Amino acid sequence: MKELRIGLLGFGVVGRGVAELLLAQEKLLRERTGVALRLVRIATRTPERAQGVPLGAVQVSGAVHQVVTADDVDVVVEVMGGLEPARSLLLEALQRGKHVVTANKALIAMHGEELMRAAAVAGRDLLFEAAVAGAIPIIKVLRESLAANQIDQLYGILNGTCNYILTEMRERGSSFDQVLQDAQAKGFAEADPSFDVDGIDAAHKLAILAAIAFGSFPHFSQIHVEGIRHVSAVDITWASEMGYRIKLLGIAKQDAEGVELRVQPTLVPVTSMVASVEGVFNAVFVRGDAAGTTMYYGRGAGAGPTASAVVADLADLARNGGKEATQRVAGFSTLLECLSSHPVRETAEWRGEYYLRLAVADRPGVLAEVTTVLARQQISIDAIHQKGRSDVAAVPLIMVTHETTERQVRAALREMEGLDAVRETPRFIRIEPGFV
Amino acid sequence: MKELRIGLLGFGVVGRGVAELLLAQEKLLRERTGVALRLVRIATRTPERAQGVPLGAVQVSGAVHQVVTADDVDVVVEVMGGLEPARSLLLEALQRGKHVVTANKALIAMHGEELMRAAAVAGRDLLFEAAVAGAIPIIKVLRESLAANQIDQLYGILNGTCNYILTEMRERGSSFDQVLQDAQAKGFAEADPSFDVDGIDAAHKLAILAAIAFGSFPHFSQIHVEGIRHVSAVDITWASEMGYRIKLLGIAKQDAEGVELRVQPTLVPVTSMVASVEGVFNAVFVRGDAAGTTMYYGRGAGAGPTASAVVADLADLARNGGKEATQRVAGFSTLLECLSSHPVRETAEWRGEYYLRLAVADRPGVLAEVTTVLARQQISIDAIHQKGRSDVAAVPLIMVTHETTERQVRAALREMEGLDAVRETPRFIRIEPGFV
Repeated sequence: MKELRIGLLGFGVVGRGVAELLLAQEKLLRERTGVALRLVRIATRTPERAQGVPLGAVQVSGAVHQVVTADDVDVVVEVMGGLEPARSLLLEALQRGKHVVTANKALIAMHGEELMRAAAVAGRDLLFEAAVAGAIPIIKVLRESLAANQIDQLYGILNGTCNYILTEMRERGSSFDQVLQDAQAKGFAEADPSFDVDGIDAAHKLAILAAIAFGSFPHFSQIHVEGIRHVSAVDITWASEMGYRIKLLGIAKQDAEGVELRVQPTLVPVTSMVASVEGVFNAVFVRGDAAGTTMYYGRGAGAGPTASAVVADLADLARNGGKEATQRVAGFSTLLECLSSHPVRETAEWRGEYYLRLAVADRPGVLAEVTTVLARQQISIDAIHQKGRSDVAAVPLIMVTHETTERQVRAALREMEGLDAVRETPRFIRIEPGFV
Repeated sequence: MKELRIGLLGFGVVGRGVAELLLAQEKLLRERTGVALRLVRIATRTPERAQGVPLGAVQVSGAVHQVVTADDVDVVVEVMGGLEPARSLLLEALQRGKHVVTANKALIAMHGEELMRAAAVAGRDLLFEAAVAGAIPIIKVLRESLAANQIDQLYGILNGTCNYILTEMRERGSSFDQVLQDAQAKGFAEADPSFDVDGIDAAHKLAILAAIAFGSFPHFSQIHVEGIRHVSAVDITWASEMGYRIKLLGIAKQDAEGVELRVQPTLVPVTSMVASVEGVFNAVFVRGDAAGTTMYYGRGAGAGPTASAVVADLADLARNGGKEATQRVAGFSTLLECLSSHPVRETAEWRGEYYLRLAVADRPGVLAEVTTVLARQQISIDAIHQKGRSDVAAVPLIMVTHETTERQVRAALREMEGLDAVRETPRFIRIEPGFV
């Protein structure tokens, strides 16, 4: 019986999940791969955490570097997170002839090119299914199952924390701050939630997906990132009344002129499939020229789902049977030497429908002033809503535009902000029709 | 540049789609696999169909057997359909050292064991992603992405024709026969629709999915198959009123005592994800012990989606790089020598909630007679609906049970059929809660 000897870097929630899954499914994995997947070493800054976990003969230590250098390790699994020392450790592991499996989205999004080149030089594999959307096998799907497709659009709910917050805001009619506090109390959001709620985590994942879909290295800096802090209960209520839900989407589009990459709160029709993805679930929609639209749905985080993806990568390595099939599939799907960069379309050039929210004085003539600005920018209106209330200083004025460019929308909002009747900075949220 | 030389058996809608996709994506596939995927031969009973298709140097002939024997073919792609001569041709192709890619669900469901053993003896690959759910990569997902999961339940909408018919019946309030006629006129249903509407096509696919999920060869004969002919407009209306939709599902369950395999019209909650899969779309839901529930959605048929799956298999073979990685992944996921058979649970032992429809005389005492029968069978009722109309001979009486066994339900319905007030054979439809 061949074996694949595994060294684990990190023993937090995910690391423990990986260790437990490898031990629990030892027989199943042997019967499916013909290889014994054997966990031999765990390195963690807190080795005491492993006490009480039935790990058998696995060596647990605080010496992280040892796992990378040990002769009895064929593959290093990195679930520590963070850019350093993870980056240096994985580069060294590859140089020392070990395969690498990582769940580290930030690392692949920021240093994917350097790591993938190092893997090619070393003739070893660098796999990262767990880096995007947890249990959803979107990396393998894009790289292998959709290999015959030119992909022109991809979008997804890539951050479970944001989707949970937006779902709760709608269901309970609560504000962002209230729901965030509750989510933190329940452990669904971090003490410092900015990585999630400001869209950075989703942008890391989108950078990776776009690289594979469009044939480039990941370019995190090309992504336009907006989080959900500015989404108000008013927006969610009005969106519902007009037949929309608000989701934080990662969106990647490509045409002959270039790519658009963005993470943003988005109005999607309530009847679209993506609108029904609720709570902590993730989903990714992909449009290919042959397959049409396909969709992939599941849990985007947690010990079990993430471990499922990590161990699937290990099973892939096991089935590669040693070195014969190494680098069987290129890391970003397209061969390194064929990857190219794509021009990025300026936000001003984006086209679409827009949801606009103003706070205006409730007096005659305001609507005429506002719509005159829109007319000057050649923006036509699909729907407009205002409920007058004479007892407050400002009332919400909600509008949905027909298709226009973001340049026109931004110019109009700047102009509106200068109007005397407009009491707060006007906000907009982009609308996507959803292609399912 | 390495090349993979392809011989195509069959040039119907799917065959033409495969040929066109290979030619259109030649550069893309080369940049993703490092291999030139070259279509060299097409065999079809109607070679004249290829006239006008720009096939370049591809040899088109009516000599089907030649593709299997030709020295310049590395892989035979079978998209003819039917059991023979497909089976004999593919066995011979394997014996002659060629890989095989097929979209033939009936063939894999009925002769999967024989073909897979032949592939193992020959040391060649037999791939069949396109056999189940078109563009949805459910075969690869089960075999590779969920390799670390023990799967206990799987269900799916596996036949687009049935899903289209049920969707139309609900939206238009029409009968099965009316909608079927329209679907035939539009080309969404075959002239002889029995393969689809009687559930056989879905059962072929379920046999394949269950084999991979549970680690056995496909056993078509173990599947309990019911089609949608008996689903009436009344059922659809009442299901809607009670918060359900009716879908034809393929369902596979496994526990320590055995497996349940069935294709059946099923009531699912309107709020469940599966209820929102409409029209010709397919979807598969899988529950694994690590990943939890994941779902896969897309077009289950058509030239593009099916060709996308066929060419994905070809890309896999190309990436295997000749013979080094052949038989990298076992055909039914688990190694041939580790596949086992599972005892099948009798329908009488199935447990669940049931929807019951009776046609009864509209007179006093009927409800008492019917509910007495249920009480005698220890079946408790969750909901009951009857609308009296004195001007007709019989009115529908609709009931939903709490969880019970199918033995009890069948015994109760037999007894009810003997009642004087019951005017037609009582019908039942099983209810599944849907695990998303």
